[in-house]
Amino acid sequence: MFSSYRLPWNKFKPHAWIPVRLAHITRLSDLFQPLSIAPTNQDNSGKTDDAVSRSQKLLLETGMVSPGSAPGTFNLHPLFMRSVEKLTKLIDDELRTIRCQKISLPSLQDASMWKSTNRWSLMGSEMLKFQDRLERHCCLGPTSEEAVTSLVATHMHNASYKKFPLRLYQIGPKFRDEMKPKYGLLRAREFIMKDLYTFDTSEENAKISYDAVVSAYENLFARLQVPFVKAEASSGAMGGTKSHEFLLPCESLGEDTLRVCTKCGATFNAEIKANQGAACSACSSTTELDTVKAIEVAHSFLLGTQYSRKLGANFVGQDGKSNSLVMGCFGIGVTRLIAACIEVISSGDRIRWPLAISPYGICVITPKAGSKEASAGGLLAMQAAVKLDQLPQGNGEVVVDDRDDLTIGRRLKDAQKSGYPMIVVVGKTALDEVPKIEMHYQEGDQDRSMILSLDELLDLFRAEEPALDSTNNDPNSVRL
Amino acid sequence: MFSSYRLPWNKFKPHAWIPVRLAHITRLSDLFQPLSIAPTNQDNSGKTDDAVSRSQKLLLETGMVSPGSAPGTFNLHPLFMRSVEKLTKLIDDELRTIRCQKISLPSLQDASMWKSTNRWSLMGSEMLKFQDRLERHCCLGPTSEEAVTSLVATHMHNASYKKFPLRLYQIGPKFRDEMKPKYGLLRAREFIMKDLYTFDTSEENAKISYDAVVSAYENLFARLQVPFVKAEASSGAMGGTKSHEFLLPCESLGEDTLRVCTKCGATFNAEIKANQGAACSACSSTTELDTVKAIEVAHSFLLGTQYSRKLGANFVGQDGKSNSLVMGCFGIGVTRLIAACIEVISSGDRIRWPLAISPYGICVITPKAGSKEASAGGLLAMQAAVKLDQLPQGNGEVVVDDRDDLTIGRRLKDAQKSGYPMIVVVGKTALDEVPKIEMHYQEGDQDRSMILSLDELLDLFRAEEPALDSTNNDPNSVRL
Repeated sequence: MFSSYRLPWNKFKPHAWIPVRLAHITRLSDLFQPLSIAPTNQDNSGKTDDAVSRSQKLLLETGMVSPGSAPGTFNLHPLFMRSVEKLTKLIDDELRTIRCQKISLPSLQDASMWKSTNRWSLMGSEMLKFQDRLERHCCLGPTSEEAVTSLVATHMHNASYKKFPLRLYQIGPKFRDEMKPKYGLLRAREFIMKDLYTFDTSEENAKISYDAVVSAYENLFARLQVPFVKAEASSGAMGGTKSHEFLLPCESLGEDTLRVCTKCGATFNAEIKANQGAACSACSSTTELDTVKAIEVAHSFLLGTQYSRKLGANFVGQDGKSNSLVMGCFGIGVTRLIAACIEVISSGDRIRWPLAISPYGICVITPKAGSKEASAGGLLAMQAAVKLDQLPQGNGEVVVDDRDDLTIGRRLKDAQKSGYPMIVVVGKTALDEVPKIEMHYQEGDQDRSMILSLDELLDLFRAEEPALDSTNNDPNSVRL
Repeated sequence: MFSSYRLPWNKFKPHAWIPVRLAHITRLSDLFQPLSIAPTNQDNSGKTDDAVSRSQKLLLETGMVSPGSAPGTFNLHPLFMRSVEKLTKLIDDELRTIRCQKISLPSLQDASMWKSTNRWSLMGSEMLKFQDRLERHCCLGPTSEEAVTSLVATHMHNASYKKFPLRLYQIGPKFRDEMKPKYGLLRAREFIMKDLYTFDTSEENAKISYDAVVSAYENLFARLQVPFVKAEASSGAMGGTKSHEFLLPCESLGEDTLRVCTKCGATFNAEIKANQGAACSACSSTTELDTVKAIEVAHSFLLGTQYSRKLGANFVGQDGKSNSLVMGCFGIGVTRLIAACIEVISSGDRIRWPLAISPYGICVITPKAGSKEASAGGLLAMQAAVKLDQLPQGNGEVVVDDRDDLTIGRRLKDAQKSGYPMIVVVGKTALDEVPKIEMHYQEGDQDRSMILSLDELLDLFRAEEPALDSTNNDPNSVRL
């Protein structure tokens, strides 16, 4: 009866995708990765400065990013883009889990709504302001409290309390005309930010949203496997009643100073702790507070009703009365977080990526052109690359360094500097009776290697769980 | 020997993702989709205008987008974002197939490079220009020929001819201060664009890149299953030697006029055909040329060396000599293309999406609250949603309309207006001895429906191929 009906999508035949996949294994000879960008810190005056951060130096020298035409802006190159896309997916996954919905608000914003919250003048020259062709005052959004609150005020005007919580977020470019852009992506004037806004019907419900987001942040940092600190912070210019910062401890470069209670571990931004005396406000201990330097990568604010009141974002409660929505706002500096991870977990001369956002998991190095093993080893290397890519554990995670006019040693060094977690080298041992492959990786600060047949290498991978789940973490294909 | 070694990613255990997936089926009661936005055309003066396009009306009325604070800007809501993300993946896939590499260039650009190509004055007030806090002249990139050519000139200065072709693209916001923003996303001031730039070592090689991109575009339109036209066009302000436009024919709204040879089918933009007389320049026929109106959604330009010469993007050839790289540039208006598809394939009162970029493939409507079938039918509906979502053919493609204070008839109408290709309704027939489900879909302009048991429904889906490939087209998980 229904067998004659074809679902509409059957009419579409995807063009053969399996051969395409294999052809898709990236080769470094094709890759845009200029390996010799001299790192200089470009401050806002356009002058250069010696104070270059470790992440900036490594990301520039490995050709992952380069300075844009305007100070404090960066071109993101293909490898770095993969990391951005992987992190985006991790964030999407964590936020969808707590029922956040993805939207996109324009960067080009009208002055009027910023004036109604008084932030047009409060943000001052940190905001990029200008006039359009009809001389209307506009700005580039440094953040979107005004835009999202206006959106909800206009299109959910006096909606029923049943429609809340509402949790809206976006991931995209943000603009801040920093007085001193520095340390590369750690303080840029244009950067990628995730900004989330929650709308609830009471302070109590807003706290539930707040806690849900904080716990999603904790999951995210756990998945990145970076040491992070959550600190009670001041709400500052954002206003509101409760605020936390998420930071990566970093003695050399941390711009935030934290106070950590040696007894209960509670952590506070020094800004607020200075006001509260020496005793820990969590456990009331009067033992000394440790001081830690750290880089802020995310924050959370319980905003209350300050924006919803000014912009008229109301709901109708069970009692039939109209009230202001209670808001929270939550940011993650996406490009900043990647740079901060590199800053704190890398050694001075090579990048270490959090595994979940490493551009590729495995780099396969082919034999040098003209070497005895070039022919047999070249085939073996491609076979290894394709077979690793076909395993769920390596799928989409393989890149081949086929720059075979360079020695293996030079390419191994490049691969280590670029931070590939696993490096598979096909060299002289390709000519063994049972052809062998070298595998290099880091364990802690130690370089390790082992020599294996291709089957042994594949078995080793098969014994592991897939990178992130049952498929993989290729930004173009991952199921999170 | 190596079994004691654990790959580093094994240390990371993803938190249980299977329950999360099931919990992730979106419910319309949660979804931000304001269904009653009055469509008005907002021109650049801020005044409203009656000329509203069909896509604009439908996208506003179905709560897919809403106007931003500045004229000609739009908030993209969750359903529309899914469409954008699906289209992004299709584009990524087609471009990766021809070895394009994804990058991201800043929107914030310095005036100097625009001055060196003279486009600072050529683009005039269509470019959003301003000064930063140090009074340096900047703009928001309307396109990125200058930025990408500078990037290549700086970091691949006199690179070997072996490093080419180089094909770099990005997908992100672009800004044009249109005199008359109109028709919603068809002519906005901030919009999402894919821009691709190719670098080759000769005019001949540049043509190979050009043809590869044109064929990727053709694949893309074939996957969208929309009727498109490729027309020879004038290079205009962009300069260069060869140019094509990709357009969707649209009598009511097409701003481009095409001339089509009735004999050989060759198509030309009327701009260039006017200069070439009445004969077809492809087949030399002097029969009449048809006139067709159409909406431009993509373009391609063979630029030659005009940008590379001015900005010093050179390579070193086999002969050891330095020469200017030969460039092509290729745009797709991502948000514009979605709007244009809706414009041309929808009927006046309901959206029709290209299947490959429909926000969700299947909408499941639950029984009305308080109806006799509410209890048994509610369970059946959730069971249907979960089981459809578990099939590769429906995975990630299911949304549940659980707004059960509304009648089924009202929700069916909403679902049809929002354009879900398949609508599954659980109503009175849920109480049949073998509980039954209605399935509604469109075939051509006809509304069709059938009544099935859950098993029959699932078998029907199982008999089909997965939406786009062996996994699915959920923007958050698809393997393309």
